[in-house]
Amino acid sequence: MSNRTGTLLGTVFHVPEREQAYGKRALRNAQNLVDDETTDSDITVVCNGGGIDHLLASAPTADQISELIQVGVRVCACRNSMGEDVSLADLVDGVEVVPTAMGELTKRQAAGDAYIRP
Amino acid sequence: MSNRTGTLLGTVFHVPEREQAYGKRALRNAQNLVDDETTDSDITVVCNGGGIDHLLASAPTADQISELIQVGVRVCACRNSMGEDVSLADLVDGVEVVPTAMGELTKRQAAGDAYIRP
Amino acid sequence: MSNRTGTLLGTVFHVPEREQAYGKRALRNAQNLVDDETTDSDITVVCNGGGIDHLLASAPTADQISELIQVGVRVCACRNSMGEDVSLADLVDGVEVVPTAMGELTKRQAAGDAYIRP
Repeated sequence: MSNRTGTLLGTVFHVPEREQAYGKRALRNAQNLVDDETTDSDITVVCNGGGIDHLLASAPTADQISELIQVGVRVCACRNSMGEDVSLADLVDGVEVVPTAMGELTKRQAAGDAYIRP
Repeated sequence: MSNRTGTLLGTVFHVPEREQAYGKRALRNAQNLVDDETTDSDITVVCNGGGIDHLLASAPTADQISELIQVGVRVCACRNSMGEDVSLADLVDGVEVVPTAMGELTKRQAAGDAYIRP
Repeated sequence: MSNRTGTLLGTVFHVPEREQAYGKRALRNAQNLVDDETTDSDITVVCNGGGIDHLLASAPTADQISELIQVGVRVCACRNSMGEDVSLADLVDGVEVVPTAMGELTKRQAAGDAYIRP
């Protein structure tokens, strides 16, 4: 976590795909940036569409999500994509719901964040 | 359309894949940003490669394209990708042709747009 | 190369997928930007994950990589993704190794580069 002190940069990861291997890879990418001692960046992960599945408390990626949240990564679910089928109670503790992924991705970049689409 | 008055932000969507389900999803993403009352952003959609197919007047996505154009979204086709096979007359009315998608995506971001790759 | 003199813009391409057709397409996208006389941009290509394969001296994309490097494109491999299996000697001459793709993509965008994910 030492590389997350005195943060100067910001990065938003966009995770829109349902495939489980994709979700694991995308979250590993975010973890790699946490662990990169040459880059000091505040990290947000935004999941939408099928990507919502990776945020479920019952998902194989639940531990990866928890670990990211514990080191200060902000993890967001698109309310639009959650629809009627998924509620906040279904998601890993600490996940935040945003009105739309598209709006959040726009606002983060307008605030200066880099965008990465794994 | 109320959320498109007094626009402060900008967003460019990059749509490079041919699969029909992908095209529908990508265009729904753009529509979601139009409809998001918490975000006010000028929107551009840039299609290249197989993504050109979604812009054809004969495509199942033609209505989605028309609706986006009607609410002020700029929709662009990469001339480079159109090659000899596709002409402007084949595209939905109102679609604009740009020299290359890569140049347009670079210029939009240099002008301050956020980038989203559905 | 005339459009690479007096460069004002910057573009970083992110190439994370292994599929050979994807690699060829992504590198053609970078070449299209080199060739676009309406856009003057310094170009970086960052490969990670399965995308590392496109940088191997033995890969079908080796010539595309060499041509990009010869016109001044910076081509980067993610050390993290190379792991124990790939060494610098396995890569096309002129490819640069960076600590992590995620860090490099963040730093390039923080420096003003546009991001493109083919």
